[in-house]
Amino acid sequence: MRLVTYRATVEAEARLGAVVDGIIVDLERFGQVKGVPFPASMLEFIDLGPQAVAIATRLLAECDGLFPIGTTIPLGNARLLAPIPRPRKNIFGIGLNYTEHVAESAKSLDTSPELPRQPVIFSKPPTSVIGPDEPILHNKAITQQLDWEVELAAIMGTTAKGVTRENALSHVFGYTVLIDMSARDCRRAGQWIYSKGQDSFAPMGPVVVTADEMPDPQSLDLWLTVNGVEKQRSNTAFMLFKVDELIADISQGITLEPGDIIATGTPAGVGAGMDPQEWVWPGDVIVAGVDGIGTLRHPVVAAA
Amino acid sequence: MRLVTYRATVEAEARLGAVVDGIIVDLERFGQVKGVPFPASMLEFIDLGPQAVAIATRLLAECDGLFPIGTTIPLGNARLLAPIPRPRKNIFGIGLNYTEHVAESAKSLDTSPELPRQPVIFSKPPTSVIGPDEPILHNKAITQQLDWEVELAAIMGTTAKGVTRENALSHVFGYTVLIDMSARDCRRAGQWIYSKGQDSFAPMGPVVVTADEMPDPQSLDLWLTVNGVEKQRSNTAFMLFKVDELIADISQGITLEPGDIIATGTPAGVGAGMDPQEWVWPGDVIVAGVDGIGTLRHPVVAAA
Repeated sequence: MRLVTYRATVEAEARLGAVVDGIIVDLERFGQVKGVPFPASMLEFIDLGPQAVAIATRLLAECDGLFPIGTTIPLGNARLLAPIPRPRKNIFGIGLNYTEHVAESAKSLDTSPELPRQPVIFSKPPTSVIGPDEPILHNKAITQQLDWEVELAAIMGTTAKGVTRENALSHVFGYTVLIDMSARDCRRAGQWIYSKGQDSFAPMGPVVVTADEMPDPQSLDLWLTVNGVEKQRSNTAFMLFKVDELIADISQGITLEPGDIIATGTPAGVGAGMDPQEWVWPGDVIVAGVDGIGTLRHPVVAAA
Repeated sequence: MRLVTYRATVEAEARLGAVVDGIIVDLERFGQVKGVPFPASMLEFIDLGPQAVAIATRLLAECDGLFPIGTTIPLGNARLLAPIPRPRKNIFGIGLNYTEHVAESAKSLDTSPELPRQPVIFSKPPTSVIGPDEPILHNKAITQQLDWEVELAAIMGTTAKGVTRENALSHVFGYTVLIDMSARDCRRAGQWIYSKGQDSFAPMGPVVVTADEMPDPQSLDLWLTVNGVEKQRSNTAFMLFKVDELIADISQGITLEPGDIIATGTPAGVGAGMDPQEWVWPGDVIVAGVDGIGTLRHPVVAAA
């Protein structure tokens, strides 16, 4: 399934939907017709476990494109939010997880040129999340080095503690796109949370593709443009630590829970690595995508 | 008020209480008698705002030590949990916030000997929180350098975005004690979350002292012992960035929300700074406190 969190109108409540052929099927309302108690939010749906994904997939397929009256709206009429508008904890971010990005970071930032031997983990607070088309805030009082990083994000479906690499992907609910906005001049004593955790610094969406439809997360093209000019293009095949390794590694010390989000790192092509360096400013537009999932588009605006 | 989250019996639900002269008054039940709808959890109580603290304080005082039947249990009969057993996002941690600790860290770890010019921020996931007396897990598969750090933690009461230092403390709900357990050998490319964010690495409690009863958080002795031997003793007067500065600084880029927890950094005396270095191992007992708040006691045990 391709799942979204959406509002039918600007004032309407956020609801959970499945996208089928350009139509959003409201899962709670669809479930009411079918006699299945699907919830109205992504996190509650994730909490139901993989069985709920299988049941919803089957019930939707049985409709053969004709869904019950009152359960659908055209995708184009809806306002999409971040798939998980309010995560239950900070997003796990992974740094230095593509070879060429390690090289460009070592040239331009304060990181080592050596490939990390273990995943480099940081975090982004729930307050950093924004949905498709929402503005990225440029706060000129605290940064003159606002940079972009397109990433594949994995969303956990079931609790993972001390799992093996072999079992890791069975704990994934699905995948989405995340832009890891980074104010390079807001790093402090090497810690990244203030540079990567500011309000609006985690654009996320537009959909979650459930893991059953994406058995191999390591073969996806990902790319990013600024004002239409391509800055990043790579493939998740080039991750140093694959999604299964990241989950296995983190879960040795930190219990991963349903709804946890892991942003898996960005390839080369960030602004800090350009010569001369490039940053985004109010008026710029960032568009980024992971093929097979979707595209995010975000204007950069001055923070109030 | 001195607030706790407690269970009346091992199986009972977690509830919110106020401690008065060795008695826990269950705030929801007390409110029912008084016709005031107090909630059953700390986070819901924080969400009500400072007015709720003022009303509860007055109603408790009016009882003059004689509380309605069915609303109290002796403190000694209760099991205390972390005041906020499940934070809504990662705890904000502050590194290198006491002068001598900056010096000992530079000698023994990979940090700079210079005093930071801005607060150094990291995070600890909600899954790292444990309550009084719960075991700290020593996972020998991933660390042989488990260290201690006693800290004052501030709990936010109201949303703070771009606040001034002068206004910052008005956004604080209260204060508690937090031990920032740190597996020194789990730092990665300088990032601290994996070293400080493992399960059980944020013992917290035993009570929250509301901010109205602690107008000056910068005059509190704090200390820590391992197996009865004092390792840390200092005073919050010696913080480099005071609580109001931390809140004002973070809130410039990251909106702080009710229930957010800021662990304000540790003074000198950590194991990494000893010569030879000292670490804790299964069988050790850490006791730590902030005067005026309370004491935490935690055995270190081998992770399963």
